Amino acid sequence: MRLQGETRRIAFETGVQVHAEGSCLVRLGNTHVLCSASLEDRVPDWMKGRGTGWITSEYGMLPRSTHTRNAREAAKGRQQGRTVEIQRLIGRSLRQAVDLARLGERQLTLDCDVLNADGGTRCASITGAWVALALALKARGLESALKNQVSAVSVGILEAGPGLRQGLILDLEYEEDHRAAVDCNLVASRPAGRVEDVPDIVEFQSTGEGRSFTRAEALDLLDLGLTGCASFMDAQLEAIARA
Amino acid sequence: MRLQGETRRIAFETGVQVHAEGSCLVRLGNTHVLCSASLEDRVPDWMKGRGTGWITSEYGMLPRSTHTRNAREAAKGRQQGRTVEIQRLIGRSLRQAVDLARLGERQLTLDCDVLNADGGTRCASITGAWVALALALKARGLESALKNQVSAVSVGILEAGPGLRQGLILDLEYEEDHRAAVDCNLVASRPAGRVEDVPDIVEFQSTGEGRSFTRAEALDLLDLGLTGCASFMDAQLEAIARA
Amino acid sequence: MRLQGETRRIAFETGVQVHAEGSCLVRLGNTHVLCSASLEDRVPDWMKGRGTGWITSEYGMLPRSTHTRNAREAAKGRQQGRTVEIQRLIGRSLRQAVDLARLGERQLTLDCDVLNADGGTRCASITGAWVALALALKARGLESALKNQVSAVSVGILEAGPGLRQGLILDLEYEEDHRAAVDCNLVASRPAGRVEDVPDIVEFQSTGEGRSFTRAEALDLLDLGLTGCASFMDAQLEAIARA
Amino acid sequence: MRLQGETRRIAFETGVQVHAEGSCLVRLGNTHVLCSASLEDRVPDWMKGRGTGWITSEYGMLPRSTHTRNAREAAKGRQQGRTVEIQRLIGRSLRQAVDLARLGERQLTLDCDVLNADGGTRCASITGAWVALALALKARGLESALKNQVSAVSVGILEAGPGLRQGLILDLEYEEDHRAAVDCNLVASRPAGRVEDVPDIVEFQSTGEGRSFTRAEALDLLDLGLTGCASFMDAQLEAIARA
Amino acid sequence: MRLQGETRRIAFETGVQVHAEGSCLVRLGNTHVLCSASLEDRVPDWMKGRGTGWITSEYGMLPRSTHTRNAREAAKGRQQGRTVEIQRLIGRSLRQAVDLARLGERQLTLDCDVLNADGGTRCASITGAWVALALALKARGLESALKNQVSAVSVGILEAGPGLRQGLILDLEYEEDHRAAVDCNLVASRPAGRVEDVPDIVEFQSTGEGRSFTRAEALDLLDLGLTGCASFMDAQLEAIARA
Amino acid sequence: MRLQGETRRIAFETGVQVHAEGSCLVRLGNTHVLCSASLEDRVPDWMKGRGTGWITSEYGMLPRSTHTRNAREAAKGRQQGRTVEIQRLIGRSLRQAVDLARLGERQLTLDCDVLNADGGTRCASITGAWVALALALKARGLESALKNQVSAVSVGILEAGPGLRQGLILDLEYEEDHRAAVDCNLVASRPAGRVEDVPDIVEFQSTGEGRSFTRAEALDLLDLGLTGCASFMDAQLEAIARA
Repeated sequence: MRLQGETRRIAFETGVQVHAEGSCLVRLGNTHVLCSASLEDRVPDWMKGRGTGWITSEYGMLPRSTHTRNAREAAKGRQQGRTVEIQRLIGRSLRQAVDLARLGERQLTLDCDVLNADGGTRCASITGAWVALALALKARGLESALKNQVSAVSVGILEAGPGLRQGLILDLEYEEDHRAAVDCNLVASRPAGRVEDVPDIVEFQSTGEGRSFTRAEALDLLDLGLTGCASFMDAQLEAIARA
Repeated sequence: MRLQGETRRIAFETGVQVHAEGSCLVRLGNTHVLCSASLEDRVPDWMKGRGTGWITSEYGMLPRSTHTRNAREAAKGRQQGRTVEIQRLIGRSLRQAVDLARLGERQLTLDCDVLNADGGTRCASITGAWVALALALKARGLESALKNQVSAVSVGILEAGPGLRQGLILDLEYEEDHRAAVDCNLVASRPAGRVEDVPDIVEFQSTGEGRSFTRAEALDLLDLGLTGCASFMDAQLEAIARA
Repeated sequence: MRLQGETRRIAFETGVQVHAEGSCLVRLGNTHVLCSASLEDRVPDWMKGRGTGWITSEYGMLPRSTHTRNAREAAKGRQQGRTVEIQRLIGRSLRQAVDLARLGERQLTLDCDVLNADGGTRCASITGAWVALALALKARGLESALKNQVSAVSVGILEAGPGLRQGLILDLEYEEDHRAAVDCNLVASRPAGRVEDVPDIVEFQSTGEGRSFTRAEALDLLDLGLTGCASFMDAQLEAIARA
Repeated sequence: MRLQGETRRIAFETGVQVHAEGSCLVRLGNTHVLCSASLEDRVPDWMKGRGTGWITSEYGMLPRSTHTRNAREAAKGRQQGRTVEIQRLIGRSLRQAVDLARLGERQLTLDCDVLNADGGTRCASITGAWVALALALKARGLESALKNQVSAVSVGILEAGPGLRQGLILDLEYEEDHRAAVDCNLVASRPAGRVEDVPDIVEFQSTGEGRSFTRAEALDLLDLGLTGCASFMDAQLEAIARA
Repeated sequence: MRLQGETRRIAFETGVQVHAEGSCLVRLGNTHVLCSASLEDRVPDWMKGRGTGWITSEYGMLPRSTHTRNAREAAKGRQQGRTVEIQRLIGRSLRQAVDLARLGERQLTLDCDVLNADGGTRCASITGAWVALALALKARGLESALKNQVSAVSVGILEAGPGLRQGLILDLEYEEDHRAAVDCNLVASRPAGRVEDVPDIVEFQSTGEGRSFTRAEALDLLDLGLTGCASFMDAQLEAIARA
Repeated sequence: MRLQGETRRIAFETGVQVHAEGSCLVRLGNTHVLCSASLEDRVPDWMKGRGTGWITSEYGMLPRSTHTRNAREAAKGRQQGRTVEIQRLIGRSLRQAVDLARLGERQLTLDCDVLNADGGTRCASITGAWVALALALKARGLESALKNQVSAVSVGILEAGPGLRQGLILDLEYEEDHRAAVDCNLVASRPAGRVEDVPDIVEFQSTGEGRSFTRAEALDLLDLGLTGCASFMDAQLEAIARA
C-alpha cells in the first residue's frame, strides 16, 4: 500500500496526437488522460484588437473510461455539470501559466480527454495540459510567453475503509476519493525556470463530504498538497526535456 | 467606506413566496436573492427505497439583475457554466445542514434567484437558502432533521483600485471582486443550536486571479472568512426567530 | 368576497431592480410580477439602418411561484408553449405604447418575472411592464416617444364553484380562472396624457373552455374588461407620479 | 377582386394520407394545408385511468411553402414561437368538437402541415382538421363522440393598399394580412347535426396592429367572421358527404 | 403481382409549390414525396468569393406518412440519424447534376418531404428532386448549368414472404424492404441530353440484412438497378417536357 | 510509396481501457482508433422479453485528432451528420458478427473514438471494434455467440495528385481520400473459425465524387477491397491470439 504522503507513479508520453502543436498522454496510476494543446492564430471575437491571447479548455471522459459505461455527452446533447466545472477549472489554472500579452493574438485550446479513470482526473488533466502547452509554445518558438509552471494534485482525509490508506492522504484513487470525509484539489505554480522554488497556490478547493473540517486540517491538507505538486513539477520538466 | 473586515448589512425578509414551504429575500447591500425551499414527499427515482432524503439546488439570475442585461438562460436553452457551478456548490453546502435519514424519503429543492447583483451572489444564496430551508422544516414539523447551521461569505485580496478597500477584505462588492488578486468563497457550519461555537469549514474555494498566493495568505483569508460566516449566522437566527 | 365587477387591489413598487432603466414590482392580490425595462442603444441586426426602434419581451415564472414547484425552464433547456405565447402577447401589446420612430435606433426589452402566481399573470405583466417602460423612457429623456398608455385585465364567465364569484367576473384569481367557462384577456390603450378618454382595444383574446359563447356574451365581457383596464390606468399614473 | 365579405373558394380533397384514420388537403385560394387525424388507443401517461380521451395538435410549414425559403424547424432544433402558438390554438379549438368521455381512453393527434401559404393558414388548419377528425371518428365507428362542428376564418380592417380590398374584410390573403390595421381570427362551433344553427364563438382573437380599435369595430368583425365560419361549415359537410 | 424486374408506376405533378423556383410531387406507387428546389442568389459564408455555387438538401417525413404516427422531428428538437443520412445522400447525388461553376454564386436547396411512405422514399426523393432542380434552372434561364440527369432506385434480394415477390427484385415496397436479405440503393446519372446513353453509377449502397452476399449477387443487383434508373430517367424527361 | 493494392500496416494493442469487457487501440498508419466493447446484462426497453440481445455503436473524434482542431460535439450539443452516419454503419456491420439469440438479453455497446485521423477512420473502427467485441465475449464466456468475423477497408480511384498513388488503390490516406474520384467503403465477413474462406460482402458503399463510374469499375473496386478485408482478418486473429 502507498504511504499516506506518496503520489502514484506519474508518466508522460509526449507527441501522441500527431497533428497537435503539443500533446501528451499522462498516466497517473490507472488514471490516463490524453492532453493536447492547439495553438491558433486567432482569438475569440470579443477579444480582437487587444493584442493579447486567450487560453481555454475542454474536458471529456470516453464513455468506457469508467467502471460501468457512461452515456456519451455528444449523444445526450449536453455536457454534465461536473464536466463544465472541471473544464472551467483547467482553463483558469492554465491561464496562470502564460503571459497573455507575449502570446499575442493567439488562442490556446487545451483538450483533456480521459481514457481511463481511477480518481484525480481533473488534477492529472491540469498537470498533463501544462506539458502539452509548454511543448506547443516551444514548437512555435513562443517559449518567452511561458510564465509559470503549473501542476495539480488531490489531497483528502479518509476515516475508514478496509484495505485503504487512512488519515491525511495524497493523490486519492477512485475508491479513496469516494470514501473521503474531506476532499481537496490543489493547483500550484512557480515561475518558469525557478526549479528550486516552493510552489505557491493557484487554486485550493476543499470540500467537506459529510462533515465539516477545521482550520488546522485545512492547513495540513494544503501543506501535503504542495509537496505533491512540487514532485509533479519535477516529472513535468523531465518529460519536456526528453521530448 | 467599509472597514476591511466588515461585511455589508444583511437583512432577511421571510415568507415572500406565498406558496413555498419556506422562503426569504436576502438583501446583502445591493445583492438581493430570493430563496425558496420546496419540500416534496418524494425522492428521485435512483434514491427510492433507501429511506433517506435528498437536497438539490437551482440558481438563476434575472436578466436585469446586472449592470447590462444578460440573456435569459431559458431563452438560450442552456444554463451557463457559471450557473451550473454555483448551483452545485449551493446544493453541496446545504446537504451539510440536514440529517438526510431523519428527513426521510423527501426532497428539498432550494431555488435561489438573483434579483439584483452586486457581488457575492453565491454566498448570499447559501446564507439565504439556509433560512428558507430551516423555515420549511419548521413549517412541516421536521425541525429534528436540521443538523447544522450553514452560511457563506466571500473574502479576497485587493491590490489596487481608487475608492476601493485595500488588502485582505471581507464580503466583496462587484467592483472589488472584479479587481481582486485573490478571490475566495468560504462556506462554514456549526451544529444547530450551538450558537456559541466557532464555525468549521464546509467548503473553501480560493482562486488566484492573475497571481498565485502563499500558504500564509490562505490562512489569513480563511480566518477572516470565518468571522464573516459567524456574523451571518447570528443574523440568520434572528430572522428565524422573528419569522 | 369581491364584487363581480371589481378588480383585486393593485400596487406598484418602483425602482426595485437597481440597474434597470425602469422597473417595478406589481402586486395584484397574490399575483406578484417583477417587471424591468432595459433600454439599449442598439437594435437587432435585421432592423439596423431604418432609424426606428424595437420593443421585445421575455416572461418567466420562478419555479416556486406556483402551488407546487414547476421545473425551471433554463434547466429543461426549453421554454414552454405557454411562456412563448405570453411573451409574444406582452411584446405586441407594449409596442403599441411607443412611437418607434421617435425611440430611434434603440431596443427596449421588457422582462416580466412572476414571483407569486394567483391568476392573471399575463395581464399583471403587461400593466406592470408599461410602468417600467414609462420610467425607463423618462430616465433617459425620451418621454416624447411614449405614445399610448397600455393596461390589461382578465375577464370571464364562471358557472359554478362553492365560495367563488359567479357569472360575468373581472380579474380572475387562479381558482376562478381554473373553473371559468369563458376566459378572456383584454389589453386596452389610450393616448398618453388623455387621462379622461375611454380606452380602446389593443388585443382581445376570448376562449370558450368547455363551451362556446355568444356574441352578446362577448360584448358584455369586452365592456366589463374596459372598465378594469381604465381603473388600472389610473393606478399606473399614480405610481409614475410617486416614483 | 373579391367582395369585402366574401371568402376565397374552399375545397377539401379527402383521403390523401393513405395510412391516416382521417385526412384531407384543404385548399383556400393559394393556402393549402394537409391535415391528418391519427387515432391511437392510448392516452398520455398523466391521463391514464380517467376513462376520457385527449386531443392534441401539431403544426408545421414546409420550408418552401412561403415566398422565400424558411429554415426547417427540425434542422434548427426548435419550433418558433409562432408555430407553438398556432398549434396550441388548433388543439384547443378541436377539443371543443369532441365529447372526450365518449371518445374513451384514446388520443387524437391532428397534424396540420402547410404546403403553400397565402394568409389564413391557422384558420384553414382548424377548418381542415375538423374534416380529418370527423372522418377518423367515422372510420373507427366513433361518430357518437363528435359533439360539435368547428370552423375558423380570419377577418380584419384594411385601411390602405393599391389593388387590395378596403375596410372590414373577410378571409385575408397574405398581402392583406400584412397590411391590416386590425387582424382577427375567429373559431366558431355549432352542435353536430344542427346544420341550421347560427354558430357560436369558440375563440376570438383580435389584435390591433399599429392602432387600437373600438368596441363597435370589434362587434362588426365578430359578425362578419361568423358568416364566414358558417359558410365554411357548409363546405365541410359537403366534403364529408362526398368522402 | 409485379414482375421481379418491374418498377411501380411513377408519376410527376409539377408546379405544386407555387412559390418555389421548381417543384414536383412524385408518386411512386403509394410513396409520395413533395420535392422543391429553392434557388437563392447567395452561397454559404465559407463559399463566398469562389465564383461557384452550392447544392444542399433537407429531407423530412410528415408525422402521418407512415403506418403509425411518427413523432415530429421539429417537436423533438432533433433530426433522427436516418433523416440525416438520407439528406446527405440526396445532396451528394444532386451535386452531380449541376456544373457548379456555371451555376455561379447561387445556392440550390432541395427539400424533399414525404407525404406517404411505402418504401423507397430516398430514391423517389432523388428522382423527384432532379425534376424540381431542372425546372428551377429552366425558370431562371440557367439550363446551361444542368450537366447530368440523375435518378435512383432500390433493389434487393428477398428470400421469403407469402404474397411477396421473390429473389432479385426491383423497387421494393415497404413490406418487401422490411423482409429483404440484401437491400440496395442505386443512384445513376448520364450526361444531360444524352437520352440514349446507358447510365453510370453515382452511388451504390448495398447492405446485407441478416446475411452477407457475394460478388456475383452484387453484380446482379447493380445490373437490375441500372435498368430501373434508366426507365425513371425517361419518365423524368416526359415530366419536364409536359411542364 | 505504397503499392496500389497494399494496405498500411495495421496493429492492435489490446486491453487499453482497463474497465471495459474488451478493448483495443487499432493503429492503421497514422489513423488511431480506441475501440471498446461494453457488455451489459440488459437490453433497451423496446427489446425486453424477446430473449435476444442488441448491439449498438457510438463514434467520436477527439477535437485534435485532425489537422486543425474540430469543435467538440459535446460542447456544440449535437452530433454531426457524418458522425451519425458512421456510427450507424459500425453498429449495422457488427450486428452481423453476433448470433443475437445466443447473446441472450444483453447489450453490447461499441465505442470507437478516433485519437488520430489520417483517412479510413470508419473502416479502422469496424476492424478494431470486432477485436474488442470478440475479447468481450471471450472474457464473459460467450464465445459461442460469435458468429462471423468482420473487417472493413476503403478503396478508391485516384486520378491525379503529385506524390500520391494513382488508379485503383486500397486503404486510402487522408490526402488520397480527399482527391479520389471514386471513394468506397467495403465491410466483409466470413463465418467465425473459417479462416480459409474468401470473405463475402456485408456492406459496399461506393460514391462518385465529381464523376460517375462504370459497372466494370465497381467490380474492380469490390475485388480489391475483398483482398484488403481478408488481410485485416488475419491481423485480427493474431491480435486475439496474443491477447
